Amino acid sequence: MPQRIEVGVLGATGMVGQQFVNQLRNHPWFELTWLGASERSAGKTYAEATNWVQDSTMPAEIAGRTVREAKPEPGAPKLMFSAMDASVAGEIEKAFARAGHVIVSNSKNHRMDPHTPLLVPEINPDHLGMLDAQRAAYGWEGAIVTNPNCSTVALVMGLAPLKPFGIRKVNAVTLQAISGAGYPGLPSIDIVANAIPYIGGEEDKVETEPLKILGSLRGGEIQPLEMTISAQCNRVQVIDGHMVCVSVELEEKAGVEALKAAFREYSGAPQQMNLPTAPAQPVVYLEEPNRPQPRRDALAGGGMTVSVGRLRECPLLDYKFVCLGHNTIRGAAGAAVLNAELMHAQGLLG
Amino acid sequence: MPQRIEVGVLGATGMVGQQFVNQLRNHPWFELTWLGASERSAGKTYAEATNWVQDSTMPAEIAGRTVREAKPEPGAPKLMFSAMDASVAGEIEKAFARAGHVIVSNSKNHRMDPHTPLLVPEINPDHLGMLDAQRAAYGWEGAIVTNPNCSTVALVMGLAPLKPFGIRKVNAVTLQAISGAGYPGLPSIDIVANAIPYIGGEEDKVETEPLKILGSLRGGEIQPLEMTISAQCNRVQVIDGHMVCVSVELEEKAGVEALKAAFREYSGAPQQMNLPTAPAQPVVYLEEPNRPQPRRDALAGGGMTVSVGRLRECPLLDYKFVCLGHNTIRGAAGAAVLNAELMHAQGLLG
Amino acid sequence: MPQRIEVGVLGATGMVGQQFVNQLRNHPWFELTWLGASERSAGKTYAEATNWVQDSTMPAEIAGRTVREAKPEPGAPKLMFSAMDASVAGEIEKAFARAGHVIVSNSKNHRMDPHTPLLVPEINPDHLGMLDAQRAAYGWEGAIVTNPNCSTVALVMGLAPLKPFGIRKVNAVTLQAISGAGYPGLPSIDIVANAIPYIGGEEDKVETEPLKILGSLRGGEIQPLEMTISAQCNRVQVIDGHMVCVSVELEEKAGVEALKAAFREYSGAPQQMNLPTAPAQPVVYLEEPNRPQPRRDALAGGGMTVSVGRLRECPLLDYKFVCLGHNTIRGAAGAAVLNAELMHAQGLLG
Amino acid sequence: MPQRIEVGVLGATGMVGQQFVNQLRNHPWFELTWLGASERSAGKTYAEATNWVQDSTMPAEIAGRTVREAKPEPGAPKLMFSAMDASVAGEIEKAFARAGHVIVSNSKNHRMDPHTPLLVPEINPDHLGMLDAQRAAYGWEGAIVTNPNCSTVALVMGLAPLKPFGIRKVNAVTLQAISGAGYPGLPSIDIVANAIPYIGGEEDKVETEPLKILGSLRGGEIQPLEMTISAQCNRVQVIDGHMVCVSVELEEKAGVEALKAAFREYSGAPQQMNLPTAPAQPVVYLEEPNRPQPRRDALAGGGMTVSVGRLRECPLLDYKFVCLGHNTIRGAAGAAVLNAELMHAQGLLG
Repeated sequence: MPQRIEVGVLGATGMVGQQFVNQLRNHPWFELTWLGASERSAGKTYAEATNWVQDSTMPAEIAGRTVREAKPEPGAPKLMFSAMDASVAGEIEKAFARAGHVIVSNSKNHRMDPHTPLLVPEINPDHLGMLDAQRAAYGWEGAIVTNPNCSTVALVMGLAPLKPFGIRKVNAVTLQAISGAGYPGLPSIDIVANAIPYIGGEEDKVETEPLKILGSLRGGEIQPLEMTISAQCNRVQVIDGHMVCVSVELEEKAGVEALKAAFREYSGAPQQMNLPTAPAQPVVYLEEPNRPQPRRDALAGGGMTVSVGRLRECPLLDYKFVCLGHNTIRGAAGAAVLNAELMHAQGLLG
Repeated sequence: MPQRIEVGVLGATGMVGQQFVNQLRNHPWFELTWLGASERSAGKTYAEATNWVQDSTMPAEIAGRTVREAKPEPGAPKLMFSAMDASVAGEIEKAFARAGHVIVSNSKNHRMDPHTPLLVPEINPDHLGMLDAQRAAYGWEGAIVTNPNCSTVALVMGLAPLKPFGIRKVNAVTLQAISGAGYPGLPSIDIVANAIPYIGGEEDKVETEPLKILGSLRGGEIQPLEMTISAQCNRVQVIDGHMVCVSVELEEKAGVEALKAAFREYSGAPQQMNLPTAPAQPVVYLEEPNRPQPRRDALAGGGMTVSVGRLRECPLLDYKFVCLGHNTIRGAAGAAVLNAELMHAQGLLG
Repeated sequence: MPQRIEVGVLGATGMVGQQFVNQLRNHPWFELTWLGASERSAGKTYAEATNWVQDSTMPAEIAGRTVREAKPEPGAPKLMFSAMDASVAGEIEKAFARAGHVIVSNSKNHRMDPHTPLLVPEINPDHLGMLDAQRAAYGWEGAIVTNPNCSTVALVMGLAPLKPFGIRKVNAVTLQAISGAGYPGLPSIDIVANAIPYIGGEEDKVETEPLKILGSLRGGEIQPLEMTISAQCNRVQVIDGHMVCVSVELEEKAGVEALKAAFREYSGAPQQMNLPTAPAQPVVYLEEPNRPQPRRDALAGGGMTVSVGRLRECPLLDYKFVCLGHNTIRGAAGAAVLNAELMHAQGLLG
Repeated sequence: MPQRIEVGVLGATGMVGQQFVNQLRNHPWFELTWLGASERSAGKTYAEATNWVQDSTMPAEIAGRTVREAKPEPGAPKLMFSAMDASVAGEIEKAFARAGHVIVSNSKNHRMDPHTPLLVPEINPDHLGMLDAQRAAYGWEGAIVTNPNCSTVALVMGLAPLKPFGIRKVNAVTLQAISGAGYPGLPSIDIVANAIPYIGGEEDKVETEPLKILGSLRGGEIQPLEMTISAQCNRVQVIDGHMVCVSVELEEKAGVEALKAAFREYSGAPQQMNLPTAPAQPVVYLEEPNRPQPRRDALAGGGMTVSVGRLRECPLLDYKFVCLGHNTIRGAAGAAVLNAELMHAQGLLG
């Protein structure tokens, strides 16, 4: 293995931080050498500071590493993944950006910022072109790049192949996994043998983020795609994998077979550049009538492939279908790592 | 307790049959005295013939009763509830109707028959006026009356209060409980920690039955309500209670408060007539942001009340909300018993 | 309904407190008029102060009542049920006892106190005879009476019918429901599709409490039953109902049929006195080979009956069997209410 | 990859058969070229004949292969894995053995046969020495070798490290996963939010198979280990991983630390021979107080490592602990593949 780039994780002890630790295990380009967390955890070993709740063992090479306080310090890696809670992520990420770090963040704080890319490498790699304007606007030496909310990404990966047909209206009803709520997250007594038709703040994200992601960069600014999304978000008793029941109205009524082909043939920069975390197919179309299913399909493509199925005509809009993505991989840590890979491949990590 | 009317159950040993046994336990008007099932079960006691899978004990007074073959015989009660599998219900129900029985059926076979009421007593009690035309058309001495599919009823009880505002379009995405699949139904390995975006035949029922239920009886025939429904049906790991995420377009944009009032004030013939199985409120509106939930709300009103919540404006159609009904009570056995109560109160049981 | 006795609940807003509210709804003897909780909740209405997590609606007559701080005050009812967390229950219960209240507690703090009854009315009603010694020892005008831990009670109700045969050794492996962990209790990500072979402090309670419960009161003190219990406690994905796999060594090898008869015929003071919360049968024996099961049997006898099954010879000790009790009813609120009913019937509430 | 040995699977379309297909995917020594199933499936492609219920995609190279009827035929591979249902496995396996095939079976039929090894390569590799006597006794050219029942293996891997201390008595209470019941297996309505204290035939297997596995081969016959096991078997809502709560009486009271060391240092022939499916550690001891847990530990060592934890003194016998094994890998397909690897390494595949 050649010399790898040192990277850090902000918020390393939480549930998303643990997912970053897993995602970076054996990464060919990046080596996790810096773990940042709250003052309370600083100075402890990662094993001491962390209630590891992944379905796997904590990597031995990380367990003994000393946790640092999440603030800029000499020698900290330039590339920082952020898994911090939204209550603190905003200011800390900005402090790191000012100090010259490139923050690849999974937190929601800067996603809708007008100078910050909301990046999905298959869909809008050109949005990285905003970073000069970002530096100019905020006076940062570093940068902040974000990935979408975990349910947004399952939807937007199902919409992106349809963009050439002109998406006008989208109805999206989600069935979301419990791992999306973090840790401790949902009390078991609330969700066992139950479903909850509400996730705080989620519907707003699903209705707005895709417009920016599918939008166009013009003159350093994003022109959102002109379409309307209505979302209803539900929590169900699933461990990993957010499923979305989608109806769409398209300008061009292309027909079911043409749309299936569009899903199957969808590909982008990560596939062309053969990025390490890129799945061979970012979207697969499943012909079985009862797929995709979270437990059976969430790990397709190492958790980076979104599965689509049940495409058929809709008596109300034009077409309806189901899409599914792994919420902690394609919807969180894997998404951010792919973002960083794209930036590295484009020479944006300096 | 005064003299009660003897009733029978066709298909008494299956899962829905067991729900009828439960629903008729201690009924003030009806006494279950006749249990019909397949030839294989006939002659055994109910306890011997039945794999009781309810979360309660088999009623002692029923356990020792001898199961009869499900065909007309002298002395069989006039009123027969039908819980038979669709593969056999069609012909057997007709044979009983020819022999003078009144069949109150939960099976799907005759629901969309042009001369058969698809009855929800709060919504369309006048549809019983079709029965003369039914007898004339088919030459029966008896009659067949049906109740809707278990997911239809949760939706249509949520739509009925909105009918005065002119319903034009409906998008309905269901999250359905496993008890709706009968027994053995869904293998556990398919649904534990999973969700399945497909239920065979279900979407068609949800898209068509409400039009008939909300339709108008004119000249002995139903004029379906003119509206369009698009449905997507999902199975989730819930035991009882079908939840529906609904969006509606209305002719009159009455505003959220007026619609909430419509839900709260909704009432019908069963409430006016004080039928034994009628809930005090057929629909309740819950103000908590995260309700209704299947495990917590399915048993409202003894399982006969449909719970509605989360009413808000929809950026795509006009309004969206969530409704929830108990699939084996309001969606099956309880629905049929309420139908029979309405018929008895109207003197239609002879 | 005649004049009822006013009662209070200490810790009324928590999960066990909510179970007391449910258990006392429509109680023929007791009327819940006083709700005590922490300083933070005091002054709010019960509806404001409480995150109601029961599968039922909060009783309307309680919702608007003002919560009081949990300390003695003029006019507070003499009889207080305690549902307080163990971290505070010890001192507060003593303060109320000093002030003349009778505390019927579900908390663990005083269970093993040498002057405090650990009461199961079917098993050891005579242990209430300790209360004079309690008052003398501690100088209280009031009293404290406790009920067992939720898994203890399922076991001890299965052992009590065997006491006449001389119990020497008991091996008990529990499968416990998530509701036993309170609220928020177990994070869903920890228990969905999982089992956890550890419950903090639980094994010690199961190994010690039954010895006191089954012991004899002599000279104002309990002589514990001489037997040895070994316990292993597991959490499983069940909502309500603790199941225990038991093996026993008996002095008298009475045979399977004699032991089944002992289970079936078991009865005690609550049945003789016809106490309101007493089940007709405190123990039922189920002959089906695959019973008892938590979801199907926990609510037997309104949650107050313990179900036993699978009695057979054990190649290691003498006999093995499975018993099951509802952990929040017979194992918590229902147990305490039955204790208070026994005390009232014996004139101990003054 | 060098020339691989062609192998077949009998019963390839069922759930265990599918696990063999998964387990043999990319195997360095064996190449799956022959798929046998019932007459009904013969002639179809594997994809047509199989309801694939694994949480992974059917391997493309297998999907198009034609299924054969499960009877000896020219050109069929010498090495046959058997995943057949017990109702047919007995006779078909014997027919193949007569025809010269080596059957490595997961079926129960021949496990307790006096001339058939019940093989766990770490524990009793020498039991393969029975095969000459097997051929002599039955006149077969081929052979039959079996692996234990899925819950037996979790227990016996936890007992094997303790054998040097002299195991006298064992109490074992299992918490077993639903995947152990095959497909369709347990109806979801029976097990969701429930536990079932009964698995047909299971307790007998757990009480008898370990005696043979841990026994000694003398003069071509197995002398079972002299110890007594009492088992109680429960089904819980877990997907993969059988957990066992064990108590043991040992001749030598070695102390907790010595036993932990015995677990940690346990190793056997598969590790020494570096067999492809052998885990680095067949047994791991976990110090965390709440481990092992099925969802978090079943896949240790690729599903071939048994996890042990919670070792402590037992007030009744000497020690108690919890062990956990993956029921469909170490308890079924992985076990059989490891058996075949051992046989190949010892030159027993001809």
